[in-house]
Amino acid sequence: MKNINNSKLKIIPLGGLEQIGMNITAFEFEDSIIVVDCGLSFPEDDMLGIDLVIPDVTYLKDNINKVKGFVITHGHEDHIGALPYVLRDVNVPIYATKLTMGIIENKLKEHNLMRGTKRKVIKHGQSINLGCFRIEFIKTNHSIADAAALAIYSPAGIVVHTGDFKVDYTPVFGDAIDLQRLGEIGKKGVLAVMCDSTNAERKGFTMSEKTVGATFDNIFAEHKNTRIIIATFASNVDRVQQIINSAYKYGRKVVVEGRSMVSIISIATELGYLNIPDKTLIDIEQLKNYPDEQTVIITTGSQGESMAALSRMAASIHKKVTIKPGDTIIFSSNPIPGNEKAVSNVINELIAKGADVIFQDTHVSGHACQEEIKLIYSLLRPKYAIPVHGEFRHLKAQANLVQELGIPKENVFIMRSGDVLELNDDSAAITDKVQTGAILVDGLGVGDVGNIVLRDRQRLAEDGILIVVLTLEKYGNQVLAGPDIVSRGFVYVRESEDLMEEARAVINDALDECIDKNITDWGKIKNIMKDSLSDFLWKRTKRNPMILPIIMEV
Amino acid sequence: MKNINNSKLKIIPLGGLEQIGMNITAFEFEDSIIVVDCGLSFPEDDMLGIDLVIPDVTYLKDNINKVKGFVITHGHEDHIGALPYVLRDVNVPIYATKLTMGIIENKLKEHNLMRGTKRKVIKHGQSINLGCFRIEFIKTNHSIADAAALAIYSPAGIVVHTGDFKVDYTPVFGDAIDLQRLGEIGKKGVLAVMCDSTNAERKGFTMSEKTVGATFDNIFAEHKNTRIIIATFASNVDRVQQIINSAYKYGRKVVVEGRSMVSIISIATELGYLNIPDKTLIDIEQLKNYPDEQTVIITTGSQGESMAALSRMAASIHKKVTIKPGDTIIFSSNPIPGNEKAVSNVINELIAKGADVIFQDTHVSGHACQEEIKLIYSLLRPKYAIPVHGEFRHLKAQANLVQELGIPKENVFIMRSGDVLELNDDSAAITDKVQTGAILVDGLGVGDVGNIVLRDRQRLAEDGILIVVLTLEKYGNQVLAGPDIVSRGFVYVRESEDLMEEARAVINDALDECIDKNITDWGKIKNIMKDSLSDFLWKRTKRNPMILPIIMEV
Repeated sequence: MKNINNSKLKIIPLGGLEQIGMNITAFEFEDSIIVVDCGLSFPEDDMLGIDLVIPDVTYLKDNINKVKGFVITHGHEDHIGALPYVLRDVNVPIYATKLTMGIIENKLKEHNLMRGTKRKVIKHGQSINLGCFRIEFIKTNHSIADAAALAIYSPAGIVVHTGDFKVDYTPVFGDAIDLQRLGEIGKKGVLAVMCDSTNAERKGFTMSEKTVGATFDNIFAEHKNTRIIIATFASNVDRVQQIINSAYKYGRKVVVEGRSMVSIISIATELGYLNIPDKTLIDIEQLKNYPDEQTVIITTGSQGESMAALSRMAASIHKKVTIKPGDTIIFSSNPIPGNEKAVSNVINELIAKGADVIFQDTHVSGHACQEEIKLIYSLLRPKYAIPVHGEFRHLKAQANLVQELGIPKENVFIMRSGDVLELNDDSAAITDKVQTGAILVDGLGVGDVGNIVLRDRQRLAEDGILIVVLTLEKYGNQVLAGPDIVSRGFVYVRESEDLMEEARAVINDALDECIDKNITDWGKIKNIMKDSLSDFLWKRTKRNPMILPIIMEV
Repeated sequence: MKNINNSKLKIIPLGGLEQIGMNITAFEFEDSIIVVDCGLSFPEDDMLGIDLVIPDVTYLKDNINKVKGFVITHGHEDHIGALPYVLRDVNVPIYATKLTMGIIENKLKEHNLMRGTKRKVIKHGQSINLGCFRIEFIKTNHSIADAAALAIYSPAGIVVHTGDFKVDYTPVFGDAIDLQRLGEIGKKGVLAVMCDSTNAERKGFTMSEKTVGATFDNIFAEHKNTRIIIATFASNVDRVQQIINSAYKYGRKVVVEGRSMVSIISIATELGYLNIPDKTLIDIEQLKNYPDEQTVIITTGSQGESMAALSRMAASIHKKVTIKPGDTIIFSSNPIPGNEKAVSNVINELIAKGADVIFQDTHVSGHACQEEIKLIYSLLRPKYAIPVHGEFRHLKAQANLVQELGIPKENVFIMRSGDVLELNDDSAAITDKVQTGAILVDGLGVGDVGNIVLRDRQRLAEDGILIVVLTLEKYGNQVLAGPDIVSRGFVYVRESEDLMEEARAVINDALDECIDKNITDWGKIKNIMKDSLSDFLWKRTKRNPMILPIIMEV
């Protein structure tokens, strides 16, 4: 296949590799830009106090007249979460499948953005035209229903973006991934594939979601005399469906607990993605009217999140559910990297309360393993491969994999945020770099916490702060009040009175030195006090608290 | 076996379950106390700024006249690390095998405690008498050489403490675990077993350390043209021996990098636990004199610790080693729970630099899996089982396991710190609770950081601090200077000047209110300022920084 002119397609990830989760990629051809996904990321450990991280979309703002719309692959936070923030500056239409749009609309309502945002629901198999692009939504399987791969038709050729996917030949809801259509598109000739790399280090195939249902049936059969509590990801509607199926089969009522779980189940039920038999769902208040062995609680908290329902039950601070000896508790999830310890802490608390905790064979991944990745590349046979969605190690693992399939090394691109890949059938190269970055959201503040504030928080967290205040005479440097020292987060003062007394002496000596030397510049006085106190405290405690001298004048 | 009088043995864990790693257990019979191990623990995520956690040994201090000595099972930090701190208050002799004592002495030297501490090296098979106890050291295998189980003979019966162990029929250095002796002691009749639970959730057997050596040989054979860098635990002397063996076999020189690695290798070599062929070890400065394919670097940093050698290489801040494309880097370790993300970050950095990172089949655990635990119980056939060393889930897993072996549930004790288990052949019960706890070490301070300081640090870390200073007239409440607001870690002030301006207005209003209402009590004035500023900031930013009003008087 030859491109119709010599222009090249530009592919520009505006987030992703440096800040995992912030999936957002611009596709640009001449005067048209489309944006695939608009995800947020959760803060790294050193981003103290930060709630969310969203992408810097300066590039889209600078080219706002070209931007035709957001095309969304599925409804997970790392693909839709930044929309409410980004839409404020880049207000273009959103295109997504039905459940994905339902979840997006829920977000837009929370942010009062429904009225101002154009939205269009697209069916699998359907295409939309945006500028010089045509985008076809192709059915895939994932750990959330209604996921789509995108075939992006540009004048320079076809790019297939898989979104997050797995190959599930026996899905719980709806159809299996549309391998036929992928084969058909492959036959037409594909310029590039952008494929999910999450599980690219894992050999073999990811198991079907249905296998978890079979495990649930076994567990329900073996635990007929106890209450069953199951924690899973709120957005995994098929998982919830299977829990409900087992509950119904074994004559149990189902309670749904946890804000995000309640919200997703209500959206999915309304849109027809969940099939709940009559009288199966009961309110948490009704729990007391049923014997334990006739109830199941589906709950949030599978990642050990401290404020989620299961964690509150484990810590005995949940208002409506108290863990009892004999309770059967199922973790239908794997810890996301970084959450291992938090999950283990919750498991320990539950076991200490006498509960029986089960976490084997109760989860399957939503991402393709190596054999599935090979299958997709073999159906599509692209000229170029651009591994996406994963840490560097995962992208590299996919890069190695596709080379085994015969794609030459120079045709495989691991892209960093902001890299501009220009490609057509003749050639492909990273030619430019645009502005990208992570914008920190803290409370209502978007971008008002930067590196200086974070460094201060890290230092405060490590060793606390000492504030030295004194009042000086105006036009002189006679000390009228102070110096007083106040500390927080440094040392328990009542038990360290001697240390604080000595610190005051150090400050007084420093001040005397300033007066002797006739130093009147406040900046200099502050620095002398700071340095001498800092030296003293390091020698005495091997700690390095923040020291903040404040001078008032009267 | 009958106890010779009606007195009972007391077993008192002074750390462990609540603070994993702080392994220290007192055994008391009438006027004799012996202490098994004296470990430290590393801070939990919420212990901001804390370096180490050591056990509260008030119980030992209160009974100092009874305490006969520390009996140490092996040289890992979680079994010996608190000795330099605890010895200051509980100065009794230490008994340990040769390598374990070598590592302890290294610590004592650092703390200038060599001269004041009695020490005795014990051989496997040898016994010591301490008060009314006899303690026999029995050979075991573990991820550090010279580990011992202890048979503790008391007038109430024999307790066997396994220490940390695995069953390695083909150890790299020295003998396999002395299963014959364990069988022989079992035949005499064992009152209780305290057995390592770390891997009690894992089925099967832990593989022999030797299997890792075979993997190294394969990797060395397959990577003859690149430099090899191997990260592992400094204390795993047998692992280091196997790396050296492979290096020698393939004609490579070995560089050792990382402070703890250099230190342990020097102790182990001196004591005869490492056998290094002549001219194999070279100094890091000599690295440049050899081609890459003739060198191996053994390094610390297998846990992604930010200041360890491998992490510094990955971050390009190591002064002497620069990672190059093609370098083969082996992680000969598994991430300890909680370190998964840090390890993954280092792997990503290394792969991004073009290195080939290997982490499969390059590590085996040092702890017994289920079949080994069953073997030990089957040799010893104790009346009581006291699972030790692990989180609650692991202790519970061992408790379930030993019940399958026929030990009745009421004879299995999961003990919390401070629990006093009184036992003899007639009965066993937890009868009392003694003071225990975690003492936080921060820099030179031991115990001067408690919950109040930690809570302050958490709050400072989350949202920073605002300090409000003003100078008031003595005997009046006229404001002579201020109010000034200084913030740190809250918001980047230059970009939030409006917010800070409004905050000042809020404080001025609060002050005016105090003057109007003739409030002169400083405490009240401070609280009014604090509350009104706090309300204002929450409304405007949904953040909750610490607010610290300071009033000076002139």
